Amino acid sequence: MRLKNIKGAKEKISKSPYIIQIPETYKGKYKTLFKNKKPIHLEIGMGKGDFIIGMAQKYPDINFIGIEKFDSVILRATQKLENIELPNLKLIRFDATEIENIFDREIDTIYLNFSDPWPKNRHEDRRLTSKKFLQKYDKIFKQSKHIIQKTDNRHLFEFSLKSFTNYDYKIKNLSLNLHEDNFDNVETEYEKRFTSLGMPIYMVEVEK
Amino acid sequence: MRLKNIKGAKEKISKSPYIIQIPETYKGKYKTLFKNKKPIHLEIGMGKGDFIIGMAQKYPDINFIGIEKFDSVILRATQKLENIELPNLKLIRFDATEIENIFDREIDTIYLNFSDPWPKNRHEDRRLTSKKFLQKYDKIFKQSKHIIQKTDNRHLFEFSLKSFTNYDYKIKNLSLNLHEDNFDNVETEYEKRFTSLGMPIYMVEVEK
Repeated sequence: MRLKNIKGAKEKISKSPYIIQIPETYKGKYKTLFKNKKPIHLEIGMGKGDFIIGMAQKYPDINFIGIEKFDSVILRATQKLENIELPNLKLIRFDATEIENIFDREIDTIYLNFSDPWPKNRHEDRRLTSKKFLQKYDKIFKQSKHIIQKTDNRHLFEFSLKSFTNYDYKIKNLSLNLHEDNFDNVETEYEKRFTSLGMPIYMVEVEK
Repeated sequence: MRLKNIKGAKEKISKSPYIIQIPETYKGKYKTLFKNKKPIHLEIGMGKGDFIIGMAQKYPDINFIGIEKFDSVILRATQKLENIELPNLKLIRFDATEIENIFDREIDTIYLNFSDPWPKNRHEDRRLTSKKFLQKYDKIFKQSKHIIQKTDNRHLFEFSLKSFTNYDYKIKNLSLNLHEDNFDNVETEYEKRFTSLGMPIYMVEVEK
């Protein structure tokens, strides 16, 4: 998700206690940051943060980290958090393509919500479920690997299912119309809009 | 698919040259029946035969076998074939639950089209993509295993994707709206009706 550049966004977010300024410092050491050994769940491309904030509120016994590429987008999340205290949530302004530089075998679950579908074939590698990214995730998962993806984009979803299973992931849960099913679900800001338009949301949970 | 019982159906189909009367005789020997070593593709639950007849016409270098449980249904297929000569097609009136009694490591591809979804959890084992059936298919596949499923039933499709991947199949192709995509496709009689109603057809091709 990209918003118009917001003047001074970088400076504003640097003041939020939720933001980890130099994430490389914590590589392999996020449990010292959270001061506990609870599982760490990561959302890659957290957008304006509705999902990760909702999850952190709902599951206090899990630590959540959201990463997002754009200053102007993550700024919205820090603004939502201004009057909320969540010791189990941290946010990072970072590009997912270098994710293995900021985590080291310490993530339990990865969430990919409404990721950029990169529809052109020549951009396949940029999709967050491409083999290239699955290989990166191998380096940041603690032990067992666990990914939950939601999207409204049929072609991205079809691509992901192929990519996951060819990389030996097994499908644990799947819905081709999430809002008709009874899965435990925290909505993203995108999802609220799509659902209100009656469009199906696809969800898959894979593990290996 | 079940039709009303048709009087004399059993007798009528026994006269069709397409029907294999005692399939147990050919277990492990279907290539002698076809008098060639071409690959053998099997449709389980062929219904009235539109798919398997269309495939046999389209692909003369593949041998096709359709099996169907109900006399009154397979009768419709034999009637369609009355003035058609297809040396690469055979039909069997048989129950899929005993499929390992009529084939032995000689099938290259299995088609499952619009199979009964058996929606109740307690009937899960009866779905043609349940672990129980995948184990049976292991015994009839020649070497590599290759299954192509089409269905309009979302829950059956979700179940199948889980079942396939948990049984180590990889997804080779997938469509969540077959008629919007450009896959090579021969339609079944069900499919024609569903598509005309604008309902999406799901397709998955798996292999291991």
